[in-house]
Parts: sequence; C-alpha cells; structure tokens
Amino acid sequence: MFIPVTNNFEYFFRVGVVFCGRQSPGGHNVIAGLYDALTVHNHDNVLIGFLGGTGGLFSQKFIEVTEDALANYRNQGGYGMIGRTKDQLRSMEQVFNARTACETLALDGLVLVGGCSTSTDAAHLAETFAAAGCRTKVIGVPVTIDGDLKNQFIETDVGFDTVCKVNAQLISNISTDALSAEKYYYFIRLMGRHASHIALECALQSQPNMVILGEAVAASKTTLFDITKQICDAIQARAEQDKYHGVILLPEGLIESIPEVNALLEEIHGLLKQGISIERIPLRLSPWASALFQFLPPFIRKQFLLERESDESIVNFQIETEKLLAQLVDTEMTRRTKAGTYKGKKFNAICHFFGYQARGSLPSNFDVNYAYALGRVAFYLIDAQLNGYMATVTNLKQPVLQWRCGGAPITAMMTVKRWLKGPGVSQIGKPAVHPATVDLKGRPYELVANNTLLWLIDDLYRNPGPLQFDGPGASCRTITLSVEDRDYIGRIQKFRAYLETVKHIVKPGCPEDVLKAALSSVASLAEILSMMSTPAYRSIKPF
Amino acid sequence: MFIPVTNNFEYFFRVGVVFCGRQSPGGHNVIAGLYDALTVHNHDNVLIGFLGGTGGLFSQKFIEVTEDALANYRNQGGYGMIGRTKDQLRSMEQVFNARTACETLALDGLVLVGGCSTSTDAAHLAETFAAAGCRTKVIGVPVTIDGDLKNQFIETDVGFDTVCKVNAQLISNISTDALSAEKYYYFIRLMGRHASHIALECALQSQPNMVILGEAVAASKTTLFDITKQICDAIQARAEQDKYHGVILLPEGLIESIPEVNALLEEIHGLLKQGISIERIPLRLSPWASALFQFLPPFIRKQFLLERESDESIVNFQIETEKLLAQLVDTEMTRRTKAGTYKGKKFNAICHFFGYQARGSLPSNFDVNYAYALGRVAFYLIDAQLNGYMATVTNLKQPVLQWRCGGAPITAMMTVKRWLKGPGVSQIGKPAVHPATVDLKGRPYELVANNTLLWLIDDLYRNPGPLQFDGPGASCRTITLSVEDRDYIGRIQKFRAYLETVKHIVKPGCPEDVLKAALSSVASLAEILSMMSTPAYRSIKPF
Repeated sequence: MFIPVTNNFEYFFRVGVVFCGRQSPGGHNVIAGLYDALTVHNHDNVLIGFLGGTGGLFSQKFIEVTEDALANYRNQGGYGMIGRTKDQLRSMEQVFNARTACETLALDGLVLVGGCSTSTDAAHLAETFAAAGCRTKVIGVPVTIDGDLKNQFIETDVGFDTVCKVNAQLISNISTDALSAEKYYYFIRLMGRHASHIALECALQSQPNMVILGEAVAASKTTLFDITKQICDAIQARAEQDKYHGVILLPEGLIESIPEVNALLEEIHGLLKQGISIERIPLRLSPWASALFQFLPPFIRKQFLLERESDESIVNFQIETEKLLAQLVDTEMTRRTKAGTYKGKKFNAICHFFGYQARGSLPSNFDVNYAYALGRVAFYLIDAQLNGYMATVTNLKQPVLQWRCGGAPITAMMTVKRWLKGPGVSQIGKPAVHPATVDLKGRPYELVANNTLLWLIDDLYRNPGPLQFDGPGASCRTITLSVEDRDYIGRIQKFRAYLETVKHIVKPGCPEDVLKAALSSVASLAEILSMMSTPAYRSIKPF
Repeated sequence: MFIPVTNNFEYFFRVGVVFCGRQSPGGHNVIAGLYDALTVHNHDNVLIGFLGGTGGLFSQKFIEVTEDALANYRNQGGYGMIGRTKDQLRSMEQVFNARTACETLALDGLVLVGGCSTSTDAAHLAETFAAAGCRTKVIGVPVTIDGDLKNQFIETDVGFDTVCKVNAQLISNISTDALSAEKYYYFIRLMGRHASHIALECALQSQPNMVILGEAVAASKTTLFDITKQICDAIQARAEQDKYHGVILLPEGLIESIPEVNALLEEIHGLLKQGISIERIPLRLSPWASALFQFLPPFIRKQFLLERESDESIVNFQIETEKLLAQLVDTEMTRRTKAGTYKGKKFNAICHFFGYQARGSLPSNFDVNYAYALGRVAFYLIDAQLNGYMATVTNLKQPVLQWRCGGAPITAMMTVKRWLKGPGVSQIGKPAVHPATVDLKGRPYELVANNTLLWLIDDLYRNPGPLQFDGPGASCRTITLSVEDRDYIGRIQKFRAYLETVKHIVKPGCPEDVLKAALSSVASLAEILSMMSTPAYRSIKPF
C-alpha cells in the first residue's frame, strides 16, 4: 500500500496509456500526471498514448506523448488527445493482441483509464500477462462520471465532481426559472448509468422538489403506477399551496430499477439474445409482460426494443423515462380533474435529459488535481513493479496537501455476484469490479431522505452557481464526499497508531496486571479477527 | 441626455417597479440599483415592488422594498423577489387601473423592467399619464435575454451576456463530447424569440460546425428543403474526412424565418383568429400550405396548431425545429445511402433545446453591474422629471468606470412597420419599439460568415468554460458587444469636441480665408443636415 520510490536513473521506462470507456472530465490530466512523473525521473522515459482506446492498443496505433502535444490538453475536458475505446476487452484474440502490443513496444507498464468494466479488464489482463511471463505491469486509474467505482480503497472517481457540479448548476437554474415562471413541472433525467450517485449528489446540491432514486425504488419494490401516483399526490399537495411549478430529478438507471419494468426488459433482452426479430418480440412476451408493454406509450415501446450496447446493459440513455413519467402523470392528473378530486390548474411538464452538456465540461479544480495525482501515482506503481493494481488517492475531502497516495490490488475490489438477476445475468460466477450503488443507509441518502417533505413543499432551492476555477467555492468538494467517511487508509493509519501506543505501554518493566489485561485482550481480538477473515465466514453473506 | 442631479432632500420620493415579460438574469439588480439610489439620497424615500408584474400594478398588490428583503436577491437570478407579468398592457381598462394605482400610491415614478413590448407599453403609458395630468413619470429599463432591444441608444440588454455565456459553455461541452465520442450530430436549438442574436453570439463563442441564422435564411429565401440539403451536404463533406460527429446551432426563430413555413404558420394563425377549431384547420388550408403541412412529421403538425401566446407571436419555443431538421436530414441521408451517393456511416442525431437552464442562471458580473447601473440611472431620470424615457448606460465594452449613464426618450426608438407581414400583422400602423434583428452587414455576422467553411470541416471548437465570477475571464464581454461600435453618446461627444476645436479656430482675429472656408463649409453642412432631418426625407426609406 505504501510505495517506496526507487529513483532508478539508469533505466528507461516505457509506459502506455489507454482511455477506456466513456469520456470523463479530467481524463487528460491522468496523462499529464503520468507524463510529468515519467519525465521528472528521466527525460528519456517514454509515454505512449494508444489512439482510439483499446482499438489502438490491439492494432498498435499510438502517438508518443510530448510536452508540446500535451500542452493543449492539460486541464481540458473530453478525451480528444488520443480518443477512447469503442470496443471493450472481450475475446482471447484481443487479449493476445494487447500482449503482443505491450511486448513489441517493450512496455514496462500499461495504464488503463476507465470505470468498473475497465478495472475488471485491467485485472484480467494483469493476470494473463503475469501467467504468460509478459513483463508489462497493468495499472488501473478510476475515471468515470458515474461515481460508481467506489469502494474501501477508492473514495470517488475522476469526473464525478465536475459532472455533478455542472448538472447541479443547470438544475438550479431551472429551479430559479420555475420559481419565476410558476407554470411548469420540470422532469429532469440525469445521465449516470445504473446507479443513482449523480442524481443523489445533484439533489443535495440543488434541493429540488423531488428526486426518485433507483436504489430506493428497487428496495421498496415500487411499481410504475406507485411512482406515478406519488408524483401526482405531490403535485396535488403543492396545488393546495397554490404552487404549479416544480422540479423532479430522475436518474438514468431508474427505469431498470422498477421491478415490473425490469422484468419486461429482461424478457425483451432474452428474446433479443435468442435472435428473435424486433417485430416479433411483442408477440413472444409473457402475458404479464405483454400487458405492461401494451400499456406503455408507443415512443417508449420503440425505445425498449433498441439494440443493447456491447456490454449488454440497456441503452438507458435512449429510454426517455422523464417523458414516460410526465405522460403518465398528465393522464392521471386529467383523470383526477375529471373525477373532481383535483381542482387545481392544468399540469404542464417540460422534460430534460442532462448528460453530454456536463460530460464534456472543463474539469473542476478537484478533478484536475485528483486526476493528475492519480497519473503520477500510476507511474510509482509501475516503478514498484506492481501488477494489477489500482492507483488510489485518499483523504480527498481534505486540502490537496493532505491527500494520501497509494495503490490497491484490483482483485481486492472484485466480487462474484451470485444472485444477480436482470440484463447483466451473464455475469454470474465471473469475478468483477461491480458498480457501487447508492447506500440507502449512508449519510448522503439520509440527508435527502430527512428533507423529503421540506423540499417537496417549501421550494428550498439551492443554487451552487456555475463551476468556479478561482475565488470562493473553487475548491469545494461534492457533498457526498464531504459527508461520507471513506478514508480507508487513514483509518488503517489510525489503527496502527493505536497499536504503537499499546506497544509502547506494554514493554519490559510494565506492571503485571497491565500485561495480563493486554495479553488476554489482544489474544481474544486476534482469534476473532482470524475467524472473521476465513473464506468460510466471508461467504456467509452475499457480496 | 445628460441629467443634472438635484439633491432634493426636502422631498420624499415614492417609486414603483414592475417586472414585465420573461425573467432575465440581472433583473433583481435593477431593483437593487434603484433602491440604493433612492435611499442614498433620502432614507425616507420609498420603493414599491408590484407583485406578479403588471397584474400587481392593476390590482395594487405590492411590497415595500427594504434592505432586508433585498439582501437575499442582490446578484441572484430569476424574478423571484416580486414575480413577473403574465398579462401584457393591452386594454384601456388596464391603463386606467395602472393610473389609478400610481395616483393612489402617490408615485413619482414607475419603472417598467422588460424588453421591446414593455418599452412600447412604457411609452404609451407615459403619454396617457401626461395627457391625464398624472404626475407619475414612466421609465423603461432594457432587460431581456433575447438581445433584441438594441438601437442607437441601447448597446445591449441585461441578461443577454449571461444567457449567451451559459449557453456557449453547454454548446462547447457538447462539442468536446462530440469530438471524444465521434458518433453523433447534435442539433441544438437556442431560446431567444424571433431574432438570432443569441445563436450568433454563441456561435462566435463556441465555433460549432454550423449555425443557421433566421435572418440569413429569410434574406436568401432558403426553403426547408434547401436547409435540409445544406446540412446533408455538410455531413457528406465531413464523412469524406472520416468525421461522423458535429454540432449544429439553430435559433428559436428559425422556423418563422423559412418563407414557405412562415406562410403556412400565417394561414394557420389567420384561421385560429377566425375561431376555426384546431381539428378543422388542416381542411381549410390553401392547397399549397396543405401540401407542406401534410409533408411535415405528425409531432410538428401538432406543434404548429398550438394556441398562440398573448402577444400573438408563435409559441416558438414549443416548436421543435431541431427534431424536424434532424428527421428530415435522417430521411435524406437514408435516401442518399440507398441511391449509393452517400457511402459513409449511418447518421445519428441527438437533439437539444437550451433555454430554461440558461435563463435561470446567476447573472454574470457584466449583467450584475449593468443592471445595477441602469437601476440607479432610472432614479435620476425620475428625479429629473423625465417621462417616457429609457435608462441607458453606454460605452459598455470599456471597464465599468468608463461607462456613461444617460437616458433617451423611448419614442425616439419607436418606428412604424409599414410592410410588416406574418403573424404580427396586426401591428401595422402602430408605433412600437421593434425587436432588432441580426444585421447581416454587421461585424459579428461577418465574423461568422467568414469562418463558415473552416468551422464546418476543421472542428475549431472553442470552449469559453463556465461563467466565472472571479479570476481571469470574469469580466469579459460578449463578442457581439466587443466587435460592434455602438457607442452613440460617445460619438456625439466626439462630434462636439470637433465643433469646439473649429469654434476655437474661428474667432475674432482669425484670418479672412479661414473664416471664409469655415463659413461656406458649415453653411453647406447645415443645409444638408436640415434637409436630411425633414420628415419628408426620412419617410423615403422604410424603417
């Protein structure tokens, strides 16, 4: 975990870097950090940037990174400098090509920049390389906007901070506008894949009237009808206060989290995999799924039948959940009006999807520094001959000078999902770095849950303003990061400090009763911890 | 134009302020400036904020503005403090109610904050008040995001700067994203009413691949099919360079500017005014308009039939021009692929409408200062007993300390549109402050026109980054303002300086030939200028 730096000046390092997966603000600074670490140790060290992601790795298309080439991309958004992956690492042929590239180019290290799938790929690649005697060390760097590459070693991923801040600015602007116009309900869907981290953080920053988190819906088994009713009741409660505007946040992954919708999507997915044509799928659905399918508006039916992405996930971002809900709510409000149970003004909705306009942003100061630090760390991991490691920087809620650099084996972040159901069902049995979902017992969710009623009725909209690079607010962190206590390495250090204190007390010359108390206590602790660490014990609970 | 300040400490001023029209960033600072000017002169002066715009004025619903109430709204976006107009000033009854309110509340001044229609209303109200012997002076303040309240007295309006900067940030983020993903064409429609000022400024700031300005389309009589072809040709040219992404900007008013579409909209509007029901309108269209109507996709047909707003303009923002064009382009690209004339990858479009998320923004430093200065000026105009004047601040491209405060009679900005056609046809013959359109001979348009080909092919995307309140870039102006030379008062001052020089040369003691040259030259100038100023001469050319 704590890496000694060997200033090996005699040896030239050759390192390759690949952008895997979707672009995320800050990515370029990983290259910058890596390049600076390499060249500060030896000007002859070489950094190779593979073009177009893994595609460039397989086919050995690359550029040599130079100070001049880098100058235009430091602190800039996107992945424009070398481009990103379109294919993921899947086949044995691809793994073989990757190895050939690393051996041909005599690489000491290969840095894969990306999210959960990338980390899984990095671990598998590291293992294959080691088994084949390839000397290239594979290092992962956690970069994805989704905020779901998070575990005891990784506090947050690069890009999440920027994307949440840009989205929160836009949501808050819309809230301000809603409050002035007083006539629309805004349904805002946020890009961010399956987990609702972005929606949660944006809710904390903007305090909209409502946020519907996928994890909460899945946990409480809320149906599509329940959600519609819930929104309609909220609109009705607000109308009683003479309020006809509002802002409702929806995560991209919400649609998959609604149990019966997920069941339908799973059936469609299964049929697609069997090679059934899109036209025939509606006829092959189970009666129950078919009923739901027929109930949905035509535009949503069409979106449900879209082809899946390479990683077999639903093409979430193409399913306009915001429009589906707005339409269902509209129908229900019209019904209530006719039935005389709703007497307020007509419900008007405006729908938004925020994704690209945040993902392409200039990175925030936090992401700029974090990505740069991770890039530098990646070099030290390679220098330390570590293979299959993830570069980590912790204690991130503190000022940069108090950050702690380190690394952790990616395998320690991998789990096997035994009871996984749904579109990702093929992953059963394969160890992988799984996306973290929102912890419904965590502090960030608690903050939202405690304020639900207040935000719903009182319009306590908060506007964090646009992303600042200078002046007050320029160095603020996400609220999620600030209220979570994820400083794993910090806590290990704290633990070690306690051990030192105890060791200092219990030494030759200490009283007999102190020794006795210490001995019995430590013996018992050692026994408990060894028991807790056995594989048998750890398999009791699902990961 | 140059207003003496009478520090009249014996007299208490009572002033009312109304937000008219759509919210615009910076509006609150007009109130702040007005309040500070009032109270710095006499702490007993009273500022009344009418609630809900003109509605509050007619029904005398208001709050007294206090330092405490204002504290939460200084430098903030939206119109949340007192709300905005839903109705415009139309009927004689409303004018009567406005007068009654001003007389009952013993107002010395009434400040109307808004765009072109508001300015027209302010001029009419001023005239009516003066005729009726009401002592309340009516003052206009130019606040609208659209950038179309612009003439020789007004360099730009409050809100335009902020909205362009926020939109440009988002467009640039999307361009960055497009360049990384390399698979989508983004069709982005920008809120901004009929004129294309926002689209033009955003194009200058972001340098997208294409921008289609309503004014250029109207001037060249381009049809919907021409525009589609133009975009398809551009996509084809880019495909030849192996580029399958791009960013295309469309102003909200584009749809009205396409001649045959405008003719269709005009027919529909006429039929709506005759009270024909929406269902029967398609049957009553002329054969030509009907053909176009049937050609359009169903969602656009539906949007064309939507009810008009109170000012009889089309509900532009509800017509999804971006989706219409994306669909037409998709159809044409599929046709070309089948015909074998296009051999590139499949065309993929993603559509966006940017409006609310920019309009609700915190105001930029420029708008904060500009609005505040205008608010202060409004007080001095009232103090100087000026009626029907617009508060103005000029020399805006220079630092704040070099700004020049003044006022101008609103009637001097009014024109009568004689040849106006289209949905606003009822305005014929009525003097009004008309929205300025983009000047196709102006410097900002020239900059875009000169770069068309370069931007189209070379992806010279520029990212101005998010709105900054501190650090470099925080005080930059819009490019439109920076390249235009609109300093009317400055030029008058320059002219006067020349006169002084001439006067200084031609005085008792000067040589005979100097006097002779000066006299003949000035006599001729005086004759030319008097001729140019006669009403007969001025009516020769259309306004």
